[in-house]
Amino acid sequence: MHDKNFKEYCEFMHVLADAAAKVTLPHFRKNIQTTNKGPKLNSDFDPVTIADKDAEKAIRTLIKQKYPDHDILGEEGGEEINAPHKNWTERFKWVIDPIDGTRSYITGIPLWGTLIALHDGERVQVGMLDQPYLKERYIGTRRHSTLNGQKINTSTCENLSDAIISTTCPLQFFASPDDRKAFERVAAKVKLMRNGYDCYAYVMLASGHMDIVIESGLEPYDIQALIPIIKGAGGVITNWQGGPADQGGQVIAAATEKLHAQALKILNMKENNSV
Amino acid sequence: MHDKNFKEYCEFMHVLADAAAKVTLPHFRKNIQTTNKGPKLNSDFDPVTIADKDAEKAIRTLIKQKYPDHDILGEEGGEEINAPHKNWTERFKWVIDPIDGTRSYITGIPLWGTLIALHDGERVQVGMLDQPYLKERYIGTRRHSTLNGQKINTSTCENLSDAIISTTCPLQFFASPDDRKAFERVAAKVKLMRNGYDCYAYVMLASGHMDIVIESGLEPYDIQALIPIIKGAGGVITNWQGGPADQGGQVIAAATEKLHAQALKILNMKENNSV
Repeated sequence: MHDKNFKEYCEFMHVLADAAAKVTLPHFRKNIQTTNKGPKLNSDFDPVTIADKDAEKAIRTLIKQKYPDHDILGEEGGEEINAPHKNWTERFKWVIDPIDGTRSYITGIPLWGTLIALHDGERVQVGMLDQPYLKERYIGTRRHSTLNGQKINTSTCENLSDAIISTTCPLQFFASPDDRKAFERVAAKVKLMRNGYDCYAYVMLASGHMDIVIESGLEPYDIQALIPIIKGAGGVITNWQGGPADQGGQVIAAATEKLHAQALKILNMKENNSV
Repeated sequence: MHDKNFKEYCEFMHVLADAAAKVTLPHFRKNIQTTNKGPKLNSDFDPVTIADKDAEKAIRTLIKQKYPDHDILGEEGGEEINAPHKNWTERFKWVIDPIDGTRSYITGIPLWGTLIALHDGERVQVGMLDQPYLKERYIGTRRHSTLNGQKINTSTCENLSDAIISTTCPLQFFASPDDRKAFERVAAKVKLMRNGYDCYAYVMLASGHMDIVIESGLEPYDIQALIPIIKGAGGVITNWQGGPADQGGQVIAAATEKLHAQALKILNMKENNSV
């Protein structure tokens, strides 16, 4: 990617986040009506609001105006292929979740985020989490991550016994009982477990306040924006097999390579083995 | 309590919260050192920081200067009896938790709160939750509750199947396996479960964004400030037997009397009975 284009894409992300915030903020804590999208990951209730839908529409409209050849994948509107042919040279895809953490959004908790990622066909190059109620905008470019323009770094934690771990909900949101057991094996070895934060846990990890995040059952739009933020802050983020996390599913993020390696080993243990 | 005194006490709470914020905010997200107070409620790690200790000291100093005859109970400094004799007529006790949600505080999550309550010997008359990072100050007087001066109200939710429930952590923080099972019986009947918010869940309930909070193993200083806020917003808060929640332990707060009654019945069911 040319540096000039790269800068332009980063600037455009701010335009997209501003447009989304104009939709999401006025509805926040205003008793917005929710619709149930149906069962998802051990929960019968998967809420969506008009704010999710309209924020995604606003983002899609702006992308299509500015980059009509770019593909789009979003939580509410699905995939939209706009590249003129399959092997288009510089094939970009914008991957967006207008409100990650809709459960937080509808319960007044200001830890939801608007997630925007730009994938260049090989990897996610730029990612943003915008939290407009807190006025916090995290952006990562794989080499560099910032919060409102100030550089952020992961912690130096290298041992599980010193680590703070987070997952969205230890009773729900694992794609299988085996995934939950694997999480609990790691959680049993850490200093402190936290839960309930969706995307916000990843930016706390990128900022050095938490050390490990483990989840399963993620969609690509749940995680892509967070990958360059974690990497740019010095952290490691992969799937549970140690491969790319772009496609979601089982994801582990850690502050350091040593910590990541320890957690990955325990995640993949067969039951009844000792570490 | 005379109205004049009542107003004076309310105004003094703002002075106390300002003093605490001067200690807590500068350390927030600044990699503050934590000490382990030892095992508590199924967790080996019960963190405390210099911010908890110094904020409580600042509050105690101000109370002793202004009301030398008032008793004080605080999480870090314990109980201090200052009333000149046991049956002192107007015997007041300030009940404080300088940082409720220290786990949130040390992990960058801005949902901790400074809790300040004034107990008049019969009941808690005034309570405050101050969240200085969010600039949110909730205050309740049993008849009236506000957020930054604006009146707040609980939701009108009357059915468990429509309710949003919250607890601090469904895997930890229940005082016994029976308490956890009782919580899970109620949680199985609601629309949505949230967790991880400590004191902040109660003010979301008071503001109409959540409908039930159920916890066990609470200390008096964890809950007293929240009682007048819940009551003043139109909600119900009791222990699991339906009695006063002042002494902590098992606590249930609900948006309406009907919802409270339904949840209380299920909490106290014997296993294997149907509702």
